[in-house]
Amino acid sequence: MRNFNFQNPTRILFGRGQIENIADEIPADARILLVAGSGSIRKNGVLEQVTKALAGRTVHEFWGVSPNPDIAALLPALSIVRDQSIDFVLAVGGGSVIDGAKLIAAAARTEVDPWSILAKGARVTGALPLGVVLTLPATGSESNGAAAISNKETGQKLVFVSPLCFPRFAVLDPETTFSLPPRQVSNGIADAFVHVLEQYLTYPAGGALSDRLAEALLLTLKEQGPLALSDPQNYEVRANLMWAASLSLNGLIGQGVPQDWTTHHIGHELTAQYGLDHARSLAVVLPAVLEARRQQKAEKLLQFGARVFGIRDSDQAEAIDTTIAQTAAFFESLGIPTRLSAYGIGEEAIPLIVAKLKASRRLRMGERLDITPDAAGTMLSLAL
Amino acid sequence: MRNFNFQNPTRILFGRGQIENIADEIPADARILLVAGSGSIRKNGVLEQVTKALAGRTVHEFWGVSPNPDIAALLPALSIVRDQSIDFVLAVGGGSVIDGAKLIAAAARTEVDPWSILAKGARVTGALPLGVVLTLPATGSESNGAAAISNKETGQKLVFVSPLCFPRFAVLDPETTFSLPPRQVSNGIADAFVHVLEQYLTYPAGGALSDRLAEALLLTLKEQGPLALSDPQNYEVRANLMWAASLSLNGLIGQGVPQDWTTHHIGHELTAQYGLDHARSLAVVLPAVLEARRQQKAEKLLQFGARVFGIRDSDQAEAIDTTIAQTAAFFESLGIPTRLSAYGIGEEAIPLIVAKLKASRRLRMGERLDITPDAAGTMLSLAL
Repeated sequence: MRNFNFQNPTRILFGRGQIENIADEIPADARILLVAGSGSIRKNGVLEQVTKALAGRTVHEFWGVSPNPDIAALLPALSIVRDQSIDFVLAVGGGSVIDGAKLIAAAARTEVDPWSILAKGARVTGALPLGVVLTLPATGSESNGAAAISNKETGQKLVFVSPLCFPRFAVLDPETTFSLPPRQVSNGIADAFVHVLEQYLTYPAGGALSDRLAEALLLTLKEQGPLALSDPQNYEVRANLMWAASLSLNGLIGQGVPQDWTTHHIGHELTAQYGLDHARSLAVVLPAVLEARRQQKAEKLLQFGARVFGIRDSDQAEAIDTTIAQTAAFFESLGIPTRLSAYGIGEEAIPLIVAKLKASRRLRMGERLDITPDAAGTMLSLAL
Repeated sequence: MRNFNFQNPTRILFGRGQIENIADEIPADARILLVAGSGSIRKNGVLEQVTKALAGRTVHEFWGVSPNPDIAALLPALSIVRDQSIDFVLAVGGGSVIDGAKLIAAAARTEVDPWSILAKGARVTGALPLGVVLTLPATGSESNGAAAISNKETGQKLVFVSPLCFPRFAVLDPETTFSLPPRQVSNGIADAFVHVLEQYLTYPAGGALSDRLAEALLLTLKEQGPLALSDPQNYEVRANLMWAASLSLNGLIGQGVPQDWTTHHIGHELTAQYGLDHARSLAVVLPAVLEARRQQKAEKLLQFGARVFGIRDSDQAEAIDTTIAQTAAFFESLGIPTRLSAYGIGEEAIPLIVAKLKASRRLRMGERLDITPDAAGTMLSLAL
């Protein structure tokens, strides 16, 4: 096991009715910027609960944060921060809203061109305190310090990470997810599943406990995910999914072990170029990466197959075939196609994605840092 | 799943050589009280590493914190805190040293008779900041807000909990555990195992993910525990055990689900009366509690048996028999007797423990709050 430093300071307020408690988590004299998306929180009652909880507080609003939030669309929020002396950011929504709010919070207190935090790795030297009311279990952004931000002008989607961007608190009320469209539910399950696999499907490195914790999350997502689609008003199912998605990327399971993230790097480029939903890009790329890396990942693929899918094939090659096939079948069972062709994307994409990876300086990817952009292109050709 | 609020702010510094980084975690001008036990940290090099890391700092020392630390033996530390204007407490040792340091830290900033924090539930209103260098994986005290303190005068062992008593940081260096006597290693494994079971073996309550996480810890302890005894210099084994013991009682797996703790309540009284090691008291009491509560806990006992011990008996009563027997056999395999007779304790203990539970006002125990002291006595008679 590798050395690690781990701290996750986010306070989780989990369960029915917890939105009413956010007033206790935000200083009484705070000047709040509420950051939100397209308006679904108006329809499902979440905004009403937030407004009631913050009655009498100073609250300004910034609406319209879109999936894969574009840096140019976020920057106008900085004028509100400045003009209204905002000193607390409250994200109400899913991963994109939270990520956008993190960019706003960091850019408001870091004296650099905001895009340089993404493109040049400029260090976040300050950030407004941030709180979250989560409405979509998927990205884990509600209790980590990372954010994925897009740039439509340059055709990029990049990630920044700062310990200053951990939310102070996150409300996870499973009832807020009852009204989600099935596509968003499916995407959330697939997103969390791949987050776990990026931290788990590498090579044995002495992380026996981290492996078991990862498998606990995978088994939960595999069992509860389909139930959320077939029985959308089931509180217990929604609760377990919401908690699982959060723990899948809150730092816990990745401590002390190698991590991959190749699927995310390639997937982000597919999203930036073709607008694929984030989770769908991952569902397309992951099986191809696993097939291309089946030798390097053999031991963990066999363990994953045995412990999560119950595969007991004595022929190792066949067991790995079945494991990869079942992984893709799991995504398909959620209604998520796992081939580029299903999204109208052909082989013309390969050189384009390779070029974009090079432009994003993803020159060495994977747990062994041995995957070049050209090798990634070869992998992607397995997903046509 | 029940509603919950969860936050664990302790920063974990895990791995070889991490002791040298404690200087970065303690304010440069802090006046430190180093709290320690009997002196094993002098022999295994831990004190030397701590001293080197804190060279040039103001460090006073308080030695002699014993297993099941006695309140009267801890109070002299408060004079040092006052006379030396101590403003940071550093615990270097195992769970007893950490628990003692928590009592010192809380008592130094809470204006009540210190024992009333335990005996009357007086609220901790302030506490000195606390850091930990852990040398014995077992109690999880290094990343929670709880402490068990004894009172030899009254023959009690009680627990207090305060969010102010979470350590700011905890160093977990598996190499510090290489030189532990086998008895302490065994005790630590059993202690962590029972901590998980107290939060897991109750009744189904919609906590599918919490169950899976608990099983991840149980499987890890079951697999790695015996290896730590047979191959004591194996770093990976020690690392997984140390991390597992910490996660077994850092709050994570107990969120949203009912908890039992009957075994601990009875076990604490056995320790207070007869001086049994904490873990050994648990190993004696737990199988008896499970036998007595086999009907109320049937569903979880069957799940535990199937998922952790691989028991697939179609007869439920036999499966539960086997599960309880294998639990006791696991403790015995670690060299821990699971019968009172093995410790020279006979049936005269039963009325004594019942009276002590009544004196400690443990009038309703268990996940359903339906176990009286007399019922606990009946349970204990199954452990003779």
